[in-house]
Order: sequence, then structure tokens, then C-alpha cells
Amino acid sequence: MTVDQTARKNTDQSQSSRSSNAAHDLKIGVLVVTHYRLGEEFLQVLRLILPEAPEWTAVSVDPKMPVEEVRGAIAAGLKASDKGDGVLILTDMFGGTPSNMSLSFHDEHQVEVVTGMNLPMLIKLATLTDEKPLDELATFIKAYGQRNISVASELIPEGDV
Amino acid sequence: MTVDQTARKNTDQSQSSRSSNAAHDLKIGVLVVTHYRLGEEFLQVLRLILPEAPEWTAVSVDPKMPVEEVRGAIAAGLKASDKGDGVLILTDMFGGTPSNMSLSFHDEHQVEVVTGMNLPMLIKLATLTDEKPLDELATFIKAYGQRNISVASELIPEGDV
Repeated sequence: MTVDQTARKNTDQSQSSRSSNAAHDLKIGVLVVTHYRLGEEFLQVLRLILPEAPEWTAVSVDPKMPVEEVRGAIAAGLKASDKGDGVLILTDMFGGTPSNMSLSFHDEHQVEVVTGMNLPMLIKLATLTDEKPLDELATFIKAYGQRNISVASELIPEGDV
Repeated sequence: MTVDQTARKNTDQSQSSRSSNAAHDLKIGVLVVTHYRLGEEFLQVLRLILPEAPEWTAVSVDPKMPVEEVRGAIAAGLKASDKGDGVLILTDMFGGTPSNMSLSFHDEHQVEVVTGMNLPMLIKLATLTDEKPLDELATFIKAYGQRNISVASELIPEGDV
């Protein structure tokens, strides 16, 4: 069995059910803003695991970029992502430039910023079928991300590890 | 102010204090195992924020790799990372090939696998100064990662967003 086959098995979804589960029509946009290309790698992995995942945008913040250029890149990402119900921005950490600059759009654009993103949050967002208002979605996905950080050996029955 | 300067400011550490805070001598090894190059990007961002961070290893799992090749890459990563007190493996998600293959070393190597990794966990590990046994470190960093997923607007006083 190749890794690819194992990964597909582990998503616990057949090709056909994946197609119907991917919420192509989630009305809230998702934008990933991180240092360097971390966000782009996150989206690559998301598409490996869920090929039908929505085409979300990643903004890569390079330390050499002037702040106004970062702001412009996030503004363009928001414009590309917003379908009218606002944008959930996922960032790598609270207090970093990607988060701070994303937060600066809070007054002029309908956004919520969730910091400390991980892969389970992205996969969950890509398979959500029920719509929630933006603030509820942010709170939900924060809690989901938290629940999905685990010490693996604690989740496996003794003897199966 | 450039992004780089902002990022440095946001880490709230001067050049000199960063040098002394980075725990180069953490006896437990850290290994990052993810799909694609997600782990390598995580380590790049870590080094941007904390240039003195330890030189940890990332294993990139490609869907085309046969399972035995993945296992060999993780085994090599463990060998490079272990300084005698075991290795904390961080992976992108529970149930994926990187986690499953990492967990398969649980019986033959002193490892703990923490899934759903995020950037705050890496930064915290790189600045830890107190030593803990491996199982306690895994539980500690899991809780730390969970606490550092946040809805940013909830952390900023009203009017400051």
C-alpha cells in the first residue's frame, strides 16, 4: 500500500462521498495568512487529503516585505475570498505580522481572525455543510482545532500502539 | 517599519535575550513529520522568529512514497534527533500517514507523538528552559498548543481592534 492509499483510507471517505461532502458552496470565504509559504503548504496538504476542497487563497508574508505591501496582499486576498458573508482568516500565531495585519481589517471588512491554525481546522472547514454566521464559525473552528491537538498514544487502546 | 522589524518586535525579545532564551540544550529531541513540506515550512518560520532555535529535523511525507520509505525516513529522523532522552514527534493530524507511521515507533523507540501541531507549540518548545520527562512534555505542549488557538478579536480590548 502506498502512502497515498493509506492517506485516502485514513480520511475515512470514499471518492464518491468526498465529492458530496466537500462544501464547495460555503458562503463564508476562507483566507490563510502566514509567515513565508506555510499557508500555501497547508493548502497543498488540504488538497492532497481532500482533492475537492474549495480553492482558497494563501497570503505569504515575507520578512522583507514593507508593511504596506503585506496589507495590499491581504486586501487582495480578502477581495478574492469574500462572497458576501465575510471572510474567516486563519493565521499561524497571535502577535505575528500576519495576524496583526489581518486584524487591522476588522473595522473595514467583515472578517474574523483565528490564530494558531492547524491542519484539522482546514479539513473541517472544507467539509462543513451547515452554514453559521462568521463569528460563530470562528468560535466553532477554534474549539475544533483545540480538540484536535492530541497526544496520539492517549487515543489508541493499550496494546494497539 | 518592515515586516521583519515588526515580527521581531512581536516576539517581544531583543536580539540578546533571544540568544539566552533559546534552549539549545533541551535534552529531548524534536522531530516534525508531516504531509509534503509543511514541516519544513514550519521550521523555516520558527527560525525566522527565533534565529537561535535548535536545528530540528522535518520529515516530508510524499503521497508517492512507499510506506517502507516513509518508515525509513522517520527512523533516520529519530536517529538524528535523539540525544538519549527520547523524541517528541509533532505531526499535522491524527490519522494521517505521518502520524500513523510515527506511532508505529512507539514500541521500539522512546517517542511521543503530538498531532495537530501549530506554530505556537514549536516556538514554545524552542524556548523551554525547564526539563520535563517526555510524556509530561507531550501533555504540556498539547495544552499549550490548544491555549494558543484563539479568535483574535476576543483577545483585543474593544476599540483597539
